[in-house]
Order: sequence, then C-alpha cells, then structure tokens
Amino acid sequence: MQFRIEAPDPSLHDTLTARLNEVPPGRVSALALQLGLVQQTLQPTVRHPLIAVFAGDHGAIAAGASSLPQKLTWQGVERLLAGGSLLNAACREMALALSVIDAGVSHDFPSRPGLVAAKIEHGSANYALEPAMWRSQLERALDYGRAYAHAFAARDGNVLGLTALGVAAEASAALLAHCMCGLDLALLAGAAPDDASEAVARREALLARALSRTGRIDDPLEALREFAGFEIVMLVGTLLGAAEKRVLTVLDGFVATAALAVARRIAPEVTHYCVHAAQGAREGHRALAGTFGAQPLFAHDLAPQAGLGAALAMPVLRTAAACLQERAGIAPAGRGSGRG
Amino acid sequence: MQFRIEAPDPSLHDTLTARLNEVPPGRVSALALQLGLVQQTLQPTVRHPLIAVFAGDHGAIAAGASSLPQKLTWQGVERLLAGGSLLNAACREMALALSVIDAGVSHDFPSRPGLVAAKIEHGSANYALEPAMWRSQLERALDYGRAYAHAFAARDGNVLGLTALGVAAEASAALLAHCMCGLDLALLAGAAPDDASEAVARREALLARALSRTGRIDDPLEALREFAGFEIVMLVGTLLGAAEKRVLTVLDGFVATAALAVARRIAPEVTHYCVHAAQGAREGHRALAGTFGAQPLFAHDLAPQAGLGAALAMPVLRTAAACLQERAGIAPAGRGSGRG
Repeated sequence: MQFRIEAPDPSLHDTLTARLNEVPPGRVSALALQLGLVQQTLQPTVRHPLIAVFAGDHGAIAAGASSLPQKLTWQGVERLLAGGSLLNAACREMALALSVIDAGVSHDFPSRPGLVAAKIEHGSANYALEPAMWRSQLERALDYGRAYAHAFAARDGNVLGLTALGVAAEASAALLAHCMCGLDLALLAGAAPDDASEAVARREALLARALSRTGRIDDPLEALREFAGFEIVMLVGTLLGAAEKRVLTVLDGFVATAALAVARRIAPEVTHYCVHAAQGAREGHRALAGTFGAQPLFAHDLAPQAGLGAALAMPVLRTAAACLQERAGIAPAGRGSGRG
Repeated sequence: MQFRIEAPDPSLHDTLTARLNEVPPGRVSALALQLGLVQQTLQPTVRHPLIAVFAGDHGAIAAGASSLPQKLTWQGVERLLAGGSLLNAACREMALALSVIDAGVSHDFPSRPGLVAAKIEHGSANYALEPAMWRSQLERALDYGRAYAHAFAARDGNVLGLTALGVAAEASAALLAHCMCGLDLALLAGAAPDDASEAVARREALLARALSRTGRIDDPLEALREFAGFEIVMLVGTLLGAAEKRVLTVLDGFVATAALAVARRIAPEVTHYCVHAAQGAREGHRALAGTFGAQPLFAHDLAPQAGLGAALAMPVLRTAAACLQERAGIAPAGRGSGRG
C-alpha cells in the first residue's frame, strides 16, 4: 500500500511566523503555526473535531502481557457507548464528537450508534508463539484506518483525536517502539504506577521471548504483523490517511505514540501532521515522544484516561486557530506581568 | 477588617469520594472533589466563569524592580480591552467573560466597557525608600477586592479566574512571598528566561535594600503595606471575599500565588477555595505553590500569558463538575489501555 503524504509547503512559514510574532511564545503559538502549515492557510480552523477510540484485544494476554482481565476491554467499550466515562463528560463539555471503533475486541457487540463495527478478528494471536496476525489481516486493518481518516476528511473534519483502548496494548506498543526506535525495552515496557512487581517480571520475560523468536524487526509492516494488535494497525492507517488529507491528528497515550513510531517509518512526513496530547503512565512514553522531538501537552495526572488529553487539547487548538483568525489585533497583553 | 471564611464542611467528603471512585484518579477527579466541597453539594457547577485581570504599577520600577518600560502595563490593559491578545482569543473560544480592573496603573484610561475603574493611586511608592502605600490605601484596595468578589457571587458566578498585570509586579510578589513563607529571595526573584544578568543583579540589590530597611515582616497586612502593589492587595481581598462566598478561585501566575501566600496568613481556610492554573516563568513559583501543597495544572510553556492558564482550566473544571453531575454512569472506560 502506498501512502501519498506531502510535507507541508514551508513557503507559508515566514508569513505565519510574522503574523504570530506578537503572540507570547509557547505551545499555543507553535500549534497555530503547525495548524497553518498543515492546512496550508493563514487562517486555520478546527472543524468537526472528533475523538476516535480504537479498541482491540491481544492474544499475548494469556502469556502475561497484562495482569488485568481481558474483559476490561469490552467493558470499557460498553462504558464509552453508555456515555458514562470521564471521556464522555469531557466530550460533552467541549462539544466534541466521540467514536468507538471495534478493531478487534474479543467480544461480540450488538450494533448501536457510536460503535463502528470494523472487527478484523476476535483479538490478535499470541506473539510469544507466532505472528500476531496474517498479512491479509494487517492489510485490511491498515486499509480500514486509512479509509476512516478519508471519510472524516470528506465530512469536512480537520482535527482528529486518536487513542487506543485495549488491555495489553501497551506491551504490544513497547515491542513496536523498541523495533522502530531502538529504545530500551525495559524503559518502554517498565512498571506503570499500579503494576505489581511479579506482573512486570512476567511481562518482561514474555517480551524478551517474543523478540528472541523474531529478532529486532526493522521493517514497519513486518513489525506490525508480528507484534501489533488490530487497533494499533488501524491507528497507523488512520495517521497516514489523515496526513494524506491534511487532517491534524492529536495523539493521546503511549499506544498512539507507538503507532506513530511505525507510521513515520512508512512515511516520515506524517510527523508534521501530529500533535502529542498527554503523557502516558510510563516514563518510556516521554522517551519515545522525544525521538520525534515532541513533548505531550498535558501531564498524565491531568489526563489519566486514554482520549481525555486529546479532548482537552481541542480548546487549546481552537485558541491557537483563533490567534491567526483574529490576528488583526493580536498583541502581547500581559507579557509584562510574566517578567519583571 | 475581619474575613469570615469557613473551611468546607468535610462531612460530604466520603460521599463525594464514593461517587468519584470509578473516575480515573488524577487532577480532574481531585478538582471534582474540591468543587463539591467548596460548593457543599454532590452536584457542583461552573456558572458564569470570569477571568479577572488586576492591573497596577510599582514605584520601585525606577529603582530596578524591572528592566522593562512601565508603559507596558497600560499598553497591556489597552490590548486586552481592544480584544486582540491571546487571552482574549482563549476567552472567546471558551465562552468566558473577561474583566480588567485598574487597581493602580500609572496612566489615565478613558472609561469604557470591560474596564473596571478602581484606581487607588497612579502606582505604588518605591519600597526601597518608603512603604509602598498608606494604611488607608491598603484598606481601600483590600475592601474593593472583597466587594468585587461579593458582587461576582451576587451575580450567581461561582468560579473566578484571577491574575495580575503589571511591570515589576513579580519583584513585589517575591518580597511578599519571602516574608510570608521564608523561601529564599534569590529563588523567588531569580532570573526569568529572558532576563539579562545585569537586570537580575540590579533587582536583587534593590530587594535586599528594601528588606534591610524593614527587616523580614511577619504580619501580612504590614507586608502588603510595605511591598505590595495595589493590584496585589486587591487580589488578596478578592481571594478572601471569594472564599467567604464559596466561590472557587483559579490562580494564574506567580503574582496571584504570592497574593494567596498573604491571604492565607490572614485566613488560612482560603486555601481550600483555590486552584493553581499555570506555572510561572520562574522556578520559584513552583516552590511557593509547593508550600501550599499545590501544583499548577499547566506548564508555563502552555500558558505563557497571565490569565491564559485560568482560561484553559475552565474546560477542565467543567469536565470535573460533569463527573459528579452525570455520575450515574461514570465508570473507568479506557483505564485498561493505560496499563498493561
């Protein structure tokens, strides 16, 4: 599959920078510049922002990829659909649409509004023993993600928040990030704040076993086929498809960042179209984002639920767009009080 | 002046905590608990949120309290009134009211909508040589701030963002914070990212001179009289008046935090009513907030303009309130993906 992603034309850079020169320097100003470049306009907008949650299960859970019960994945999907999670509250408060995509949950959902049925399989295979998916499954998932992003752009959306939901997804993401970026696996897969030490040891042994089966895989599609979950592959396809259509993506959490680590090995220009919303629970997330020169907008403590950081990023992006929309009078009021 | 502030009745604490037990732990959940306690209800709200910017000038600027020109204060006020700053854009995007209070700017403004005329004097006196204000001025400013908060509550507002605008206000704030908390003056008044080293040396010498004139002052009102600006005194009055009326205050920046350091020496219970929005440019801000056990929600990089952090905090507070408003179905969707 060929992705046609162009880096934003830098010819607007100087004009945008000049228009932003009286905005206090910082993340909002940088986001305004990025939005202008991504949309190739001096007056960027945030239209029909959507938070998309890709859900899937992982066969390696049985081998110790997580000590949490697998049913938390489908229960999490149900809770989002019922509208009762923190993320739902945030989306309502900020007037954001929310979409849950069943990429590969090991559960049969009755069809219903807000749930996108895109199940490739009831969970991936156990990568400790065999590849996580077949090549044909990989291609279908990648293609689905791309089509999802294209459909969003066709509905006139231009900012898409992305996150993953799936027990054991972070172990898979750690393997992918290790393969793509060479970061230390123990850093990437290390203890989360609520991990028991025996669970960490079991997971580390599993990941080492998976890597000893395959060696460190350099090819991004091969790495996905061996270690990914279907939700991660769809995230990769969505990231690439969004960049093809000049849609800004707002990545939330370690799993989405690992998907970007894969996507940029397929098409490096994708990085220009991404904003990093929230720090994950593990320190390895910061190291991984650092390999793209990116720093998440929000601390984990502020956005502890996957997707919440992407939702909280939307008012910041709207403010950034407004800096350019209304720039006629933009000036650094209040900067004096920050010094002194 | 006596302030009648009660600590929130803790009897709701357990019920609120139980209702929040399925919200992922973090700042949003903590803010929901605080909102519930402040408003003494299981269903808190964010009503008529307002960002109030208190502006004033400082006589010590001539002695080196800042190397920036004093006119930046009134120009900053004009820019806010013209609607062209980053903070204006943020307030429009988040549907927040914005109010600028002339507490003591050394400039005569024509009257106009959005500007609250409350000038005590054209700037404070130079604290290197004499007290910054008379006792009667101190009392008027304190009283005005309290009345401002009471009027906000009377208009049914219950969340008030507070910040200061004034060249050299941070030097004054450093003196106050040093007197109230005993933190090292060099840490509090140290170099901001864009400070020239000779300006820092000149400011440090000035602050040492001011302190050698008075000694470290323990009494909060005396410290204000000696070292404050009128905008800082009004912030102190507003913080205390807001707490009297169970209004939650969102403090933005080092100067507002220093105002809280004074206010809590007058009435320690005020701390329960405060949220800290944004980290200031200097590391000393973190140390000062730390003395209240508080950590700002946003990094300085995300909210580099005074007041912007308070504006960005409002969607977070609205989400927090919604957690309790809608708690029937709240559940930890997506937590699985943050782990294992």
